[in-house]
Amino acid sequence: MSQRFGERVRTALRTRGPLCVGIDPHAALLAAWGLTDDAQGVREFGLRTVEAASGAVGVVKPQVSFFERFGSQGIAALEDVLAAARAAGLIVIADAKRGDIGSTMDDYARAWLTPGTPLEADALTVNPFLGVGALDGAFALAEQHGKGLFVLAATSNPEAEGLQRSTGATGSTVSASIISEVSARNEASARNAASSTAGEWGSFGFVIGATVDWAAAGIAPFAPAAPILAPGFGAQGAEPADLRPRFGEMADAVIASESRSILSAGPADLAEAISTRSAEYLEVAGV
Amino acid sequence: MSQRFGERVRTALRTRGPLCVGIDPHAALLAAWGLTDDAQGVREFGLRTVEAASGAVGVVKPQVSFFERFGSQGIAALEDVLAAARAAGLIVIADAKRGDIGSTMDDYARAWLTPGTPLEADALTVNPFLGVGALDGAFALAEQHGKGLFVLAATSNPEAEGLQRSTGATGSTVSASIISEVSARNEASARNAASSTAGEWGSFGFVIGATVDWAAAGIAPFAPAAPILAPGFGAQGAEPADLRPRFGEMADAVIASESRSILSAGPADLAEAISTRSAEYLEVAGV
Repeated sequence: MSQRFGERVRTALRTRGPLCVGIDPHAALLAAWGLTDDAQGVREFGLRTVEAASGAVGVVKPQVSFFERFGSQGIAALEDVLAAARAAGLIVIADAKRGDIGSTMDDYARAWLTPGTPLEADALTVNPFLGVGALDGAFALAEQHGKGLFVLAATSNPEAEGLQRSTGATGSTVSASIISEVSARNEASARNAASSTAGEWGSFGFVIGATVDWAAAGIAPFAPAAPILAPGFGAQGAEPADLRPRFGEMADAVIASESRSILSAGPADLAEAISTRSAEYLEVAGV
Repeated sequence: MSQRFGERVRTALRTRGPLCVGIDPHAALLAAWGLTDDAQGVREFGLRTVEAASGAVGVVKPQVSFFERFGSQGIAALEDVLAAARAAGLIVIADAKRGDIGSTMDDYARAWLTPGTPLEADALTVNPFLGVGALDGAFALAEQHGKGLFVLAATSNPEAEGLQRSTGATGSTVSASIISEVSARNEASARNAASSTAGEWGSFGFVIGATVDWAAAGIAPFAPAAPILAPGFGAQGAEPADLRPRFGEMADAVIASESRSILSAGPADLAEAISTRSAEYLEVAGV
């Protein structure tokens, strides 16, 4: 069996640095790139971004809604983009934020994390509103196939504070409880894996916004280490220099996701924009 | 402009009764129906269910994950099922539980709620983990097109209790806060609509499990009235006779969703199973 997902991410971050290129073909960017506002446009956008990212970063993150907008044709375009990205050796996180229970959740996991399926990605973002336990089928499936999950834990948008900072019976915030429940699964997974080594990263990561105030969110550094997908770099205000001050001892586990800030360079200058930005991250990451 | 979504549901429940047929082509049911475990199988399953439901109930609810499992071809099958259901005059709730922020959320809403798009449904289930406010673009889009949304509020699966019963700064549970925030939007929507009449139902409904204990969940009957999509009838344990005891004064707003309990009748007996079950609901609903 190949390297587990958490370790694949660790290797990618060490060798390529933290920058993750978001693939977000929304209408305004399609227009700016001179592409049509249809499935062919998002396919072209995605493939060009994959080409520009290839070799320059370790991770890309296609945003599913921008493809889903065009129905099955948009999803077919996404399949091509996922396949191209994986063929280029990029780690592909499908940002779909799926969340359900039982066999329904299982089939979302099957759609995105089964080897050989048309939508195969390396990892999927998932939503824990129905409980972390409701995602157990997805954790099991990911583990079985060496794939990863990123569980929404603490987001930086102000509308989320009321819910995510609510407190449960133990006094922990919703965000803290999610991190604790997922970490327990990373721990169990390491115990169960014959091939696991001490200090190995878990394959069940988190989405934690780059501008989240950890103390206010009631969250703290956690163990075992697991990848943190951090949107909010670039257009949303966080800069490479913020990585260590904001994430402290967890900084090495951060996948810094940028979309608009990079994609707005346009197709001709995209590869250069990615390389330049990636170098800025590599400098602060001390790779 | 045609009738707003909330009123369409009210009319459908009054004339057809509360039963909603879930369209859940998971692998076990495909096998039981003698259908192939692929996109053609889920298309066939969906179309046959629509045919059997047509005229017998007012509402159907395709479960998106069972189609998404087959990638773009599965989504193409879903497009055919959605179109057939809408052509048959059924109210179609796409159970996709999408949830995101900003332009990403907007594009999910566009995918499912824009007239003329391949995935057009009458309403979409959405996930409020990123905050009810993060869904505002979707509320606006739904309103613009006479469509509906069902916001996950209180689900009956035990894994959800920790999160959904956490309490915020005001002491309300997460579930109660969601209902209050969405109800405020129904109120504002009624105020803004020139055509609105007193007592009109809101178009932004809720998902509340049939077996949820309202007191334990910290929720109470709410106003303005809005449709309640209630999974948990049938295989999960709630019966038509439970409708009034469980939902009390809100019982008339309940869309009682059943899937496995009905679908397991198989294709030959499906129409009769739906009619029989619908009659049981009509009796208790006093239509």
